[in-house]
Amino acid sequence: MEKNRLSILQKWLKEEGYAFAFIQGKANLFYLTGFRCEPHERLVSLVVFPNSEPILVCPNMEKDLVRQTGWTFPLIGYSDTENPWKLLETYLSSFEIEGHAIAIEKGLLSLVRAEQIKKLSPELDLVCCEHTLMELRLIKSKSEISLLREAAKLADFGVEVGVHALSTGRTEMEILAMIEYELKRKGISEMSFGTLVLSGEQSANPHGQPSLKPIQKGEFVLFDLGVVLEGYCSDITRTVGFGSLTDEQKKIYHTVLTAQTETLKQCQAGTILGDLDKKARSIITEAGYGPYFPHRIGHGLGTEVHELPSLNETNQDRLQVGMTFTIEPGIYVPKLGGVRIEDDVLITPDGYECLTTYPKDLVEIG
Amino acid sequence: MEKNRLSILQKWLKEEGYAFAFIQGKANLFYLTGFRCEPHERLVSLVVFPNSEPILVCPNMEKDLVRQTGWTFPLIGYSDTENPWKLLETYLSSFEIEGHAIAIEKGLLSLVRAEQIKKLSPELDLVCCEHTLMELRLIKSKSEISLLREAAKLADFGVEVGVHALSTGRTEMEILAMIEYELKRKGISEMSFGTLVLSGEQSANPHGQPSLKPIQKGEFVLFDLGVVLEGYCSDITRTVGFGSLTDEQKKIYHTVLTAQTETLKQCQAGTILGDLDKKARSIITEAGYGPYFPHRIGHGLGTEVHELPSLNETNQDRLQVGMTFTIEPGIYVPKLGGVRIEDDVLITPDGYECLTTYPKDLVEIG
Repeated sequence: MEKNRLSILQKWLKEEGYAFAFIQGKANLFYLTGFRCEPHERLVSLVVFPNSEPILVCPNMEKDLVRQTGWTFPLIGYSDTENPWKLLETYLSSFEIEGHAIAIEKGLLSLVRAEQIKKLSPELDLVCCEHTLMELRLIKSKSEISLLREAAKLADFGVEVGVHALSTGRTEMEILAMIEYELKRKGISEMSFGTLVLSGEQSANPHGQPSLKPIQKGEFVLFDLGVVLEGYCSDITRTVGFGSLTDEQKKIYHTVLTAQTETLKQCQAGTILGDLDKKARSIITEAGYGPYFPHRIGHGLGTEVHELPSLNETNQDRLQVGMTFTIEPGIYVPKLGGVRIEDDVLITPDGYECLTTYPKDLVEIG
Repeated sequence: MEKNRLSILQKWLKEEGYAFAFIQGKANLFYLTGFRCEPHERLVSLVVFPNSEPILVCPNMEKDLVRQTGWTFPLIGYSDTENPWKLLETYLSSFEIEGHAIAIEKGLLSLVRAEQIKKLSPELDLVCCEHTLMELRLIKSKSEISLLREAAKLADFGVEVGVHALSTGRTEMEILAMIEYELKRKGISEMSFGTLVLSGEQSANPHGQPSLKPIQKGEFVLFDLGVVLEGYCSDITRTVGFGSLTDEQKKIYHTVLTAQTETLKQCQAGTILGDLDKKARSIITEAGYGPYFPHRIGHGLGTEVHELPSLNETNQDRLQVGMTFTIEPGIYVPKLGGVRIEDDVLITPDGYECLTTYPKDLVEIG
């Protein structure tokens, strides 16, 4: 249970004059309660009131797991034959609801559920609380940082396994399988996203899917992977040469590496987020590869692998101590191949810390 | 592209007098277009009209993949700086919209998107088309059945790898890692759900998570896994003994096996779905384990690992030729352990066919 985070949300509800917040997005629920689950179609929701205790609604079989997080507030369990909305309605009718609106996650809540919530208090408006929650999640606490650091170390390890697995005749899928095998043996049951091992032309495809194609000498091999550790995500990309690379390939690699190194140097509290993208883009453009860097320089990282802040060119917000995000410039030249170098970065009082630390010097393996 | 399926939907829209259907659920999109993707927050949607060609809206970088599915109807691509809703609005303004409502996926569509759709034609109601699409997906075609059969064979293979991997000192996660390693080497990049390898007491926990606990002699080991093959899912469960089992454990196993075998015998066109659950439940209850079978007997299986039909006690619908679903009775006794046996079943003109075929006789390994 995260009493402090719940209090901040309660304070916000009070200030805005909202009746309650209805939270059911997986990452937001986890952030506010410490309870993380994949409820599929079943309702698991947190109702937070400005002036009374929050309650959690969940299937009966989840109740033990909720209690294990330290949840001491009311808990409404329901069986497969009960209607959780009815139980919630009864609960709500037991006290006076004050406020002019219900705060919900408009981007995450289905229309069916929105209609159910509307029925609970038809006279109240529905307003969105997603941005407020995302802002709350933006600055990481000490315990969050230590989990993110540990998750990043496991991502480093995944790349290490992948690089060692490179060998003539092995397919992208086989190398991917070896990486995930070693991570699972360490107890990692969830990756942050589908692991990528892409070689040759495929490394230049932003939608490349690892395949049964054997890796070949003279190709780039791109690894992009991350793990979920106790709810916190990591995300690393490294690109290596398998066999000798051409001068053109080396130039691409060094351009990306320079763009990444120089962008990292700008990472400190106060820097405008958009300037990070501009920095990397200017270096890549100057080297003649501007059109081949089609994505933003990075994204926030926490209980979701993509969260705030968004590191795009137009973001005028400033870096703050405790933010965590990726810096991941890339150049993708059709037919020739692609290079991306990505680290997980934390803003510290002194500047920044790279949570991922796998080496970045160009290597040509075998 | 699935012209026939699109025509059926168009016919339904015409009959109901709806202006158009707006489809964005992953499985529904795949079913109607053959295009399967994970768009995250980006909009990928299909708009189907009763009397004119359907259109697909997607990020520019997805256009090639859409064309590869054989899509020949209009395609609206958009860049990261364009607003797809504006492009859609312009497209819609180019012809007369007839009908009194827009058909949407109420359970899958977020409130934010519902509001955007509402803006496109504020005078039209929003009605739900999910049930219609689910019903369309209920009866599988020959090509779907052949993919489901192939996916089931790979699930059999996964269990085979797992059973061979059982060895003193190995952890649940290590065995799981070996299973997925071998499947990935065959090119499987997606499992239908998080693979389960649960041993001993954990096998009795419906929410058990594979862990770093080594398997031990005298325990049940339960495997539950499936793969996604070209968009189609499989789902198998087998339970084996590691070392010698007690008489009580054997009785539990044989009760589950009998319940499964007898339920399968009822599988033929015309049978009431609820009767399948009742059959298994009566056998398990008679053996004294009624309270330890807490879930329905099975679920539909296709482009989603859980879809229609739902095989619960109260379902009065009847089995039809071409339906595919699981039959998976289980008994979970706290402290003692759990047994579940699950097959993927197809209703044929002659009765049924088990798509998963891994042996079910009780084995005590090592």
